[in-house]
Amino acid sequence: MKTYSFDKVELTGGFLKSKERLNRKETVAAVYDRFAETGRIGAFNFDYHEGDELKPHIFWDSDVAKWIESVAYVLKKEPDADLEQKADAIIENVRKHQCPDGYFNIYYTVVAPAERWSNRDKHELYCAGHMMEAAVAYADATGKTTLLECMERYADYIYRIFVEEDSAAFRTPGHEEIEIALIKMYRYTGKRKYLELSAHFLNARGAVEEPLREEYYQSHRPVREQNTAVGHAVRAMYLYTGMALLAKETGDETLLPALNSLWEDVTLRKMYVTGGIGSTFVGEAFTKAYDLPNDGAYTETCASIGLMLFADAMLNLDTNAKYADVIERALYNGMLSGLSLDGTSFFYENPLEINLLEHIPDSRFGKRKFPITQRVRCFRCSCCPPNITRILSTLGNYVYGRENDTLYINQFVSSTLSDGVVSANMVTDYPRSGTVRLMARGMAEIAIRIPAWCDSFTLNRPYRMENGYAIVENDGGELCICFDMTPHAVFADSRVLRDAHQLAILRGPIVYCAESVDNGADLHSVSVSPDFTYTEEMDESIGLYALTVPCKRRIPDPDETALYSRRRPRVENGSLRLIPYHAFANRGESDMRVWLFAD
Amino acid sequence: MKTYSFDKVELTGGFLKSKERLNRKETVAAVYDRFAETGRIGAFNFDYHEGDELKPHIFWDSDVAKWIESVAYVLKKEPDADLEQKADAIIENVRKHQCPDGYFNIYYTVVAPAERWSNRDKHELYCAGHMMEAAVAYADATGKTTLLECMERYADYIYRIFVEEDSAAFRTPGHEEIEIALIKMYRYTGKRKYLELSAHFLNARGAVEEPLREEYYQSHRPVREQNTAVGHAVRAMYLYTGMALLAKETGDETLLPALNSLWEDVTLRKMYVTGGIGSTFVGEAFTKAYDLPNDGAYTETCASIGLMLFADAMLNLDTNAKYADVIERALYNGMLSGLSLDGTSFFYENPLEINLLEHIPDSRFGKRKFPITQRVRCFRCSCCPPNITRILSTLGNYVYGRENDTLYINQFVSSTLSDGVVSANMVTDYPRSGTVRLMARGMAEIAIRIPAWCDSFTLNRPYRMENGYAIVENDGGELCICFDMTPHAVFADSRVLRDAHQLAILRGPIVYCAESVDNGADLHSVSVSPDFTYTEEMDESIGLYALTVPCKRRIPDPDETALYSRRRPRVENGSLRLIPYHAFANRGESDMRVWLFAD
Repeated sequence: MKTYSFDKVELTGGFLKSKERLNRKETVAAVYDRFAETGRIGAFNFDYHEGDELKPHIFWDSDVAKWIESVAYVLKKEPDADLEQKADAIIENVRKHQCPDGYFNIYYTVVAPAERWSNRDKHELYCAGHMMEAAVAYADATGKTTLLECMERYADYIYRIFVEEDSAAFRTPGHEEIEIALIKMYRYTGKRKYLELSAHFLNARGAVEEPLREEYYQSHRPVREQNTAVGHAVRAMYLYTGMALLAKETGDETLLPALNSLWEDVTLRKMYVTGGIGSTFVGEAFTKAYDLPNDGAYTETCASIGLMLFADAMLNLDTNAKYADVIERALYNGMLSGLSLDGTSFFYENPLEINLLEHIPDSRFGKRKFPITQRVRCFRCSCCPPNITRILSTLGNYVYGRENDTLYINQFVSSTLSDGVVSANMVTDYPRSGTVRLMARGMAEIAIRIPAWCDSFTLNRPYRMENGYAIVENDGGELCICFDMTPHAVFADSRVLRDAHQLAILRGPIVYCAESVDNGADLHSVSVSPDFTYTEEMDESIGLYALTVPCKRRIPDPDETALYSRRRPRVENGSLRLIPYHAFANRGESDMRVWLFAD
Repeated sequence: MKTYSFDKVELTGGFLKSKERLNRKETVAAVYDRFAETGRIGAFNFDYHEGDELKPHIFWDSDVAKWIESVAYVLKKEPDADLEQKADAIIENVRKHQCPDGYFNIYYTVVAPAERWSNRDKHELYCAGHMMEAAVAYADATGKTTLLECMERYADYIYRIFVEEDSAAFRTPGHEEIEIALIKMYRYTGKRKYLELSAHFLNARGAVEEPLREEYYQSHRPVREQNTAVGHAVRAMYLYTGMALLAKETGDETLLPALNSLWEDVTLRKMYVTGGIGSTFVGEAFTKAYDLPNDGAYTETCASIGLMLFADAMLNLDTNAKYADVIERALYNGMLSGLSLDGTSFFYENPLEINLLEHIPDSRFGKRKFPITQRVRCFRCSCCPPNITRILSTLGNYVYGRENDTLYINQFVSSTLSDGVVSANMVTDYPRSGTVRLMARGMAEIAIRIPAWCDSFTLNRPYRMENGYAIVENDGGELCICFDMTPHAVFADSRVLRDAHQLAILRGPIVYCAESVDNGADLHSVSVSPDFTYTEEMDESIGLYALTVPCKRRIPDPDETALYSRRRPRVENGSLRLIPYHAFANRGESDMRVWLFAD
């Protein structure tokens, strides 16, 4: 299918709208303020001198670029003079300080001018890519083309260096991203050279440059021979997204077998129930199939965002609800957990379990890695916050799609679609409610995704199932579909060691967790029946239901008679309060579990 | 009580005797060969020159000293010309190369002669202690006093440096051990100065020398104010043992409250079911109460040995079966696991769970710590192997004790005791069988430890229980006690996160484990009823019974339809073969679990 861009789609209410609003009101400004405080904005003045306190970092360009891109998406919907003026000021600095040859990179201009294109790992092409994505978005939103012109010059220069001259010390980006950006540049400008440059970078992979690191960079094999997800998870997602966009743009079917294998490897073997990916902090990377530790989960926010981008690109190649299912999983869980409820602090990692008992302060004698337990306002490597603002200002991208004469409903949110030919109006309180009402004009059929989590729904029309969608004839009347939102348990594949004998509780697409701040410190001593009953109450601070389920709870041992005993553990009946996973760690430091022992 | 030394006790058969024999036949020689190959023996020639391949390491003296001490214990029982000649050759080198002032340390003589007593962490006093223990043992076994004379000179010199001159750069040993050794020197020579020097080192603790490291060294507080076990586990055990020996020797009751608190903290909050201690590889150290991860368990072999020494010293202060219970737990499990069944390779760490799925090779991008999965012949830091040889050549130390007119039976092994006044003869196939027959002369009462693991036994005499011992009048006839050896499940205290919802299976004192080499790779998918039935078969390679118990086993999911599913996991009945924990990893690399999910 072809999905509709967010500029054709207006969110009109409900949970996702509230997140879009929070992003516009709080998060975009908070990210700017942190970037200003930490020198990232000021760095665009190009006035750093050796010894200054705030030394530009190799990826600061990309942080600010993602912020500008986010602002563009906000402005596309609604004017905001303050944001536009701030973005314009940064862009004016870009114009002023771009090198005469077209090169643009703060670090390599003010800190290490002699070292341009010498180190594949230093994010030069990654920064370039994000600047290009910002340029396209800003031109599209505001009509102002200054940044786009700068970035066209930069892209032309990069083409010369990497294609014509082959004069850099490396051939493929150390951090994928420009592959995506160049396709967006091509789409916006129509200049085929940018598509060629993207294809050049994608097709160059597999020429081993640094043997020990190639898996980390996904450059261990030509892309068409890659079939398992390896290395740095965000890099991988950006690569696979670039491959899918290239396949879409060029019709190159030789990319499809690899894309399908990679999709399956990620989603059937290496993805958390939250849509988090990248199991280990070592290289922020994928590990082996089914190695999904909950307390050690790295699951970077950007990796979940990358998974959404990959899924969206696949959905545009291959009309199948499974891609939209993964978008929904990541969106409501492992991506959204990256943002605090007040919209101003962030997780980079998103663990599925916190056991404070095991956290030991670093000492001189070594360092162990424990999951972060509280969101922070800015990271030294602060790629995730402006990635969240990009996603939350473009949620409309994921809602509707079209193939031939069929309108596809991929996500459920109160919204309108209008692109001249087609119009639609969806009304729902999803995911609080499972009822979705919809009217559309201009299309013969409507295809409604039946989420993989859903095992019961009603639809007020006859339908046929196709690739996970319920397809009905569009008679112009109101369609009403009602998904059963009864909370349910899910179980992991038997090979997932760390979920063994456990269950996770979902209500619709929302993954739940237990926090000790609600339930006391013995979350590991609790078990829940797979056939649990439940009560639900709206938690206004979250905007979704909290659940209370019965549990069995081990009665603590009488103090210290023996550490190990033949005495059978005794349990009592109790209850467990569960909140949506994405809202964990908003009330102080706490133990937390997504996976609960099954009774 | 006062326990009888191994020289009064002859093991006459059974499982422990087989380990004593293995040690004498294989392990002592294997350790020597590895130490010769790695330069440890040759280092005593003091002919190292800068640039030579094998550079003496700061703790090599102690490795070889423990080997000499082990040889002494072997020779005390039975002549062995080859071992004696090898030990004599090393001792002759000690005599030849000891400094005129009495100092003896290979590293600080041939590598860094200008740095004597400059660095508390470099094991000088630790090496000195082990040399002294070897000296006492060798003099006692062979009547040859060369090494003892050398070490008396060294101890006199240390007394001068640390007591009279206070001229070293530090005041307390960076690795405790000499405290124990000096008390042995005092006991053997009768020279009170050595007792004083031991007390000096113990009493000097708490004068903070390096603030960040004092907990690691157990020097954060005066010993009488220490009440929780902290820092490096082996160091801690040697300190507490030294404190208990000092209390015994001097009658200093002010040490007892600390000793009791430390004992409780270790055994009620920080000890694995195997008798392993020291939960983390970071500093080889204790962590928090109840933090006992199974796969991350560091549980150094030397730490379990240290726990046995501490327990033995406590038993000599305070007649209570709980100390002998811990000796039994460590001896048959977490200590013995340090030695391969063929007696020639070793574990330094003794994990309670191995999940090969999670083991990822090191990469440039960071290093995670995974448990070792196969024993090796020698370590760079090879303290454990000659500690095992010390223990296995002195098993008689743990069997009998005496208080007033009562003979105490602490461990069960076919053996004879004779010290002129008292004689005893014990016949048993323990721990294969629970039947123990015993006759003794020269004592009015016999006290038989009723192991804490045992909840049913028969005894052919009237008895009263006292401090965990069944006490009977000794009428000279044969006592017969029969412990119920039915395999049983134990459960950990509810606060132990990593044992939640799990059970461990013991038969008598033997902790069992499941290996995937017997049971397939899905050990995490298995559950066992606490009321399991069982069959047992003698495993001749181990010398103990293997058990087979029924289990439920999750039926693997059909391949790759979904990673998470509402489908209820299905289980089938199966069986699980269990072997004694100490014998794990003798048949290649394998997953392993001590704690099994409870049904």
